[in-house]
Amino acid sequence: MTHAGPELHIHPDAIRHNLSVLRHHLKSYAVGQTPARIWAVAKSDAYGHGLIPTLRAFDAADGLAVSSADDAAACRAAGWHKPILLLGAGLDLTTLSGAGPGPLHVVVSNPEQVNQLEHNSKLPGLYIWLRYAGSLNHAGFKPADYAPTWHRLAALHAKGRIAGLGHFQHYAYAEDAAHLLAERRQFRQTIFGLSGPVCSENSAATLNGPDVAATTQWVRSGIILYGVNPLGRHHKPGLALRPAMTLKARIHAIQQLEPGEAIGYGCTARARGPMRVGLVHCGYGHGYPRTLSTPAPCSIRGRKAHLFGRVSMDTLTIDITAQPDIQPGDVVTLWGDHTVPVDHVAQAADTIPAQLFTAITPRVRRYYPGDPGYQEPTA
Amino acid sequence: MTHAGPELHIHPDAIRHNLSVLRHHLKSYAVGQTPARIWAVAKSDAYGHGLIPTLRAFDAADGLAVSSADDAAACRAAGWHKPILLLGAGLDLTTLSGAGPGPLHVVVSNPEQVNQLEHNSKLPGLYIWLRYAGSLNHAGFKPADYAPTWHRLAALHAKGRIAGLGHFQHYAYAEDAAHLLAERRQFRQTIFGLSGPVCSENSAATLNGPDVAATTQWVRSGIILYGVNPLGRHHKPGLALRPAMTLKARIHAIQQLEPGEAIGYGCTARARGPMRVGLVHCGYGHGYPRTLSTPAPCSIRGRKAHLFGRVSMDTLTIDITAQPDIQPGDVVTLWGDHTVPVDHVAQAADTIPAQLFTAITPRVRRYYPGDPGYQEPTA
Repeated sequence: MTHAGPELHIHPDAIRHNLSVLRHHLKSYAVGQTPARIWAVAKSDAYGHGLIPTLRAFDAADGLAVSSADDAAACRAAGWHKPILLLGAGLDLTTLSGAGPGPLHVVVSNPEQVNQLEHNSKLPGLYIWLRYAGSLNHAGFKPADYAPTWHRLAALHAKGRIAGLGHFQHYAYAEDAAHLLAERRQFRQTIFGLSGPVCSENSAATLNGPDVAATTQWVRSGIILYGVNPLGRHHKPGLALRPAMTLKARIHAIQQLEPGEAIGYGCTARARGPMRVGLVHCGYGHGYPRTLSTPAPCSIRGRKAHLFGRVSMDTLTIDITAQPDIQPGDVVTLWGDHTVPVDHVAQAADTIPAQLFTAITPRVRRYYPGDPGYQEPTA
Repeated sequence: MTHAGPELHIHPDAIRHNLSVLRHHLKSYAVGQTPARIWAVAKSDAYGHGLIPTLRAFDAADGLAVSSADDAAACRAAGWHKPILLLGAGLDLTTLSGAGPGPLHVVVSNPEQVNQLEHNSKLPGLYIWLRYAGSLNHAGFKPADYAPTWHRLAALHAKGRIAGLGHFQHYAYAEDAAHLLAERRQFRQTIFGLSGPVCSENSAATLNGPDVAATTQWVRSGIILYGVNPLGRHHKPGLALRPAMTLKARIHAIQQLEPGEAIGYGCTARARGPMRVGLVHCGYGHGYPRTLSTPAPCSIRGRKAHLFGRVSMDTLTIDITAQPDIQPGDVVTLWGDHTVPVDHVAQAADTIPAQLFTAITPRVRRYYPGDPGYQEPTA
């Protein structure tokens, strides 16, 4: 580390690797059929990894999915020529200025957007994905409204007013195999008899029901590309994913605690015996989670340790009683090496890795390969 | 609102007002003595309000407290001529390039820093605050080491090698009156017989033990300046604070739910009867808390509502069943008006307002007075 504050090391090669693992996974389940194409989901600044700095890592994907037209424009300006999918719900389609050098795909989730397509003959040739509300119910059409809307859009498609038309859904609970099955059934019933490609499978569904996912037309893969198996690390099929983000910070001092002595705001932690605690320059003001229901893990010199005491704005504190060799200046990995998978930290914080990734504030310096001070994750 | 995504409206006038309320509060408790001077604490980008954009709002403070030398330099460059206090623990003092146009105060929390002061006669004339470890134990000297260290620093002061010398502590639990009393006693015992000014009182202590706080030499006021009473809104002495940050977002669609229907990832929320749910363009990818132990409040058209269902990366969902007049396009205040104090949201998320303030990501557009689209909070 070259900097006093916490550092975020981003590994585009890990994203490339995970993309290739996913591609292989889909091929292996497609069994003689065309495997699904891959939308690399890069919303929320590529899940906090940096949309533009990691853009080239998505090159092997078939398209890039982002939230907003602004993000799409930035990717086009940075040289992305493949399809872009705008995931944002309820976009005003009349504000879209054009497809740019590659196809623009848009999710349609409300009747107003269908009106916009019908009444604006000058809209650029958009590829439309009609969103089914499903069990998620975050925007989209209910079963009764889905088919009628589809027919209106199909009429536009027949006239060449839209570039394409497909079926779109977000699962609410693809992590649960039985729930995924039920959600897939509802969706298939809704689109029954309607032609067109399907885009419904997220990372969890791709792993939890890979045979079905692999034979849809497009999957949407987010968290898996950043190195996280949303079903947990030991779920089968096991995928050799690599973490794309490492969060590190430095111990700036070591505090000795006598038995009974407290540490941290609210005095929520007290030493049961003599303790040695490392004071680490990272806190919730850097985006590290403040609320932990169990002590989060970390690692130092390749060995595991745990937080002890409440995380403050600029400081977190770790129990190094059993590690007398640790000294001020030592670097702590807070997540993103083999000792500290981010999902273990997420579990301690009652959250998910995507939330941790996107929470890191601009106060934390980012390092990419080629930057002075960049470091590869330890194997 | 002028923008499709969530918006953060920052109110520097509220900071000015809160500063003046605090000044009056300290004066009223100083009773014939000199009331404490005020360090306005602006670390973590002024608690997420924007350090440089709000800088002028701190003009009436006696000094500005920030974390790093970089922040200090940015404030100097932006015209801050009053004292600056560097709060960051364990700074390498040999890297400090100079006091600039105003005094530079530094917290000394480890022996290495004392060595640096003794062995570098060319260090700029720093005003030194010696940090007591206290019950917080986030850096600083234990009782046995405090006085000997003080004497070393006092010798430097006598030779004119440092510009000043004071006593510094962070309370661990000033929100609890009995704990505050015990922490004050320990600190007073430690510094007994040692001359010099005292800087020990944070926002909570200033409210929980105002008579003592008002007669120290410097208080450090953070959260109170941003409009939050850390003891809760109904604690006496009541201070008429104003929120300095309003988080708003727009309803982009309304979803009808049938009894038993789920909403959100994980299907954690199910409609007990027919429900009307507003889909709001704001999620954890914008920094809104994902983990809520009770439904967080919000307000629309001046009326209170609550979240219903899990917060996702880009969407949160609110129950508007009882408010049939609410329509897509309506603006939801997520915190920062009289209907939705931020501490109520913090309570629902098992956290504190400072954590919420600092978590808002760069994806959220900031508005300051004078910007097109800026709005005053509703009274």
